[in-house]
Amino acid sequence: MIVVGDNLQITHPMVHAALRDSNPDPLKALVRRMEAAGARMIDINTGPLGKGAEEKMTFLVRAVEAATELPLLIDTANPDAMAAGVRAAHGRVILNGFSLEPRKLKHILPLAPQYDADIIGYLLDARGRTLPTVDDRLALAVELHQACLTEKVPQERLIIDPVVTPLLWEDGRTQNRAVLRVVQALPEVLGYDVRTVAGLSNLTAGTKFSDKQAAMECAYGAMLAASGLDMVLLNVFHEETVRVAGACEALLSEKVFTWETG
Amino acid sequence: MIVVGDNLQITHPMVHAALRDSNPDPLKALVRRMEAAGARMIDINTGPLGKGAEEKMTFLVRAVEAATELPLLIDTANPDAMAAGVRAAHGRVILNGFSLEPRKLKHILPLAPQYDADIIGYLLDARGRTLPTVDDRLALAVELHQACLTEKVPQERLIIDPVVTPLLWEDGRTQNRAVLRVVQALPEVLGYDVRTVAGLSNLTAGTKFSDKQAAMECAYGAMLAASGLDMVLLNVFHEETVRVAGACEALLSEKVFTWETG
Repeated sequence: MIVVGDNLQITHPMVHAALRDSNPDPLKALVRRMEAAGARMIDINTGPLGKGAEEKMTFLVRAVEAATELPLLIDTANPDAMAAGVRAAHGRVILNGFSLEPRKLKHILPLAPQYDADIIGYLLDARGRTLPTVDDRLALAVELHQACLTEKVPQERLIIDPVVTPLLWEDGRTQNRAVLRVVQALPEVLGYDVRTVAGLSNLTAGTKFSDKQAAMECAYGAMLAASGLDMVLLNVFHEETVRVAGACEALLSEKVFTWETG
Repeated sequence: MIVVGDNLQITHPMVHAALRDSNPDPLKALVRRMEAAGARMIDINTGPLGKGAEEKMTFLVRAVEAATELPLLIDTANPDAMAAGVRAAHGRVILNGFSLEPRKLKHILPLAPQYDADIIGYLLDARGRTLPTVDDRLALAVELHQACLTEKVPQERLIIDPVVTPLLWEDGRTQNRAVLRVVQALPEVLGYDVRTVAGLSNLTAGTKFSDKQAAMECAYGAMLAASGLDMVLLNVFHEETVRVAGACEALLSEKVFTWETG
């Protein structure tokens, strides 16, 4: 399970200020800390970016790549900003992402074949909502997969995000148990070893992060790993969660293990 | 997933000394600490106990029950000591346990119907060895189940332990991945919702316990929970592991959850 750092978010005042001041230094420092903490990819979560979106995304991608060679996830709902991010990047990028919402099918999904990039597809319906049951979510996955084929996106480019739900939601646990079963079932349902990704930070969204939240992240992260999840987005400054993700990798991988290297 | 404290072990010098001196006080203090730390059952791991085994087990059970009302696991390979422990106990006990080793089939298994008690059955062959593959282990489970029926042990009394392997062993991870699949498959293979238990402390046996070992316990414990494990034996003074076990319970249970009660 590859750890993707989700700490670089436009809602973070430091990131917001760095962008406003066109100052790459705090961004570079953040990304170096993220890599040191265990990130193996960096999610650049910018939101729509508003006016000058393409220039802003270009600045962000260049700032991040000045500090790391890790692959990037370009995380925006703005197709122009996303395209600008892909063009600005020298290294590998993943488009994050599309769903069955019509404007995303129309404007985001075509960027994958255009730039020959991996793309994350969210299990959300055409109105952007999660569906409660395992079967409903699997049906969305079949639709996402079909949309890829229609747009000439090779199925190997698709990475499915089953959408982790905040535990604050009344049906949060039920939905998250469905997520585990969906991750397990997807390769059989789609008929190939489709990759999967999930945003673990969603689990504890809306609560103060303390020991209880850390334990929830560790527990659910390991459950996702055991279900076969390939990539996990998380706050890489949550040391316990990162260590547990590493332990999952060691427990599930076929590589040689010793307590020293593992 | 019910947390069983496995801290009360005869190999612990304090426990050994308390038994030698017939002094229940340190045992009572230990058990109170275990309960406060999150134990919901207490494993009394005595070994064979040697001369005076029945009196020693009686002393241990009485000392523990003087400090707690939690259910007890009587953990010994000595059938006389086990029977004495069951007779001494006022509360609920679980026999821990038997396997396909002939002397255990002959002398331990019959104690379950005799005392109308739950009994743990280990997935070990007639020579006390773990078997490497999922299918081999499931075949052992079928044999254990059959042995119960032969001895008139109701199948609801059987709790299966698939035997967690130390990661120090060369094939430790492979075996432990098999354990996860065995726990998942058992209800279907045996045709009823058989209960399962596992000893999580085995995972890190033979190594100094630090952050890396804690992360392994948390990760593998959560994987066992997601696989459907009912009971887990662990060192309840490993706070992180206990918190993660509690998080697993909260994530997987049908009870109402809030961050405050969860």
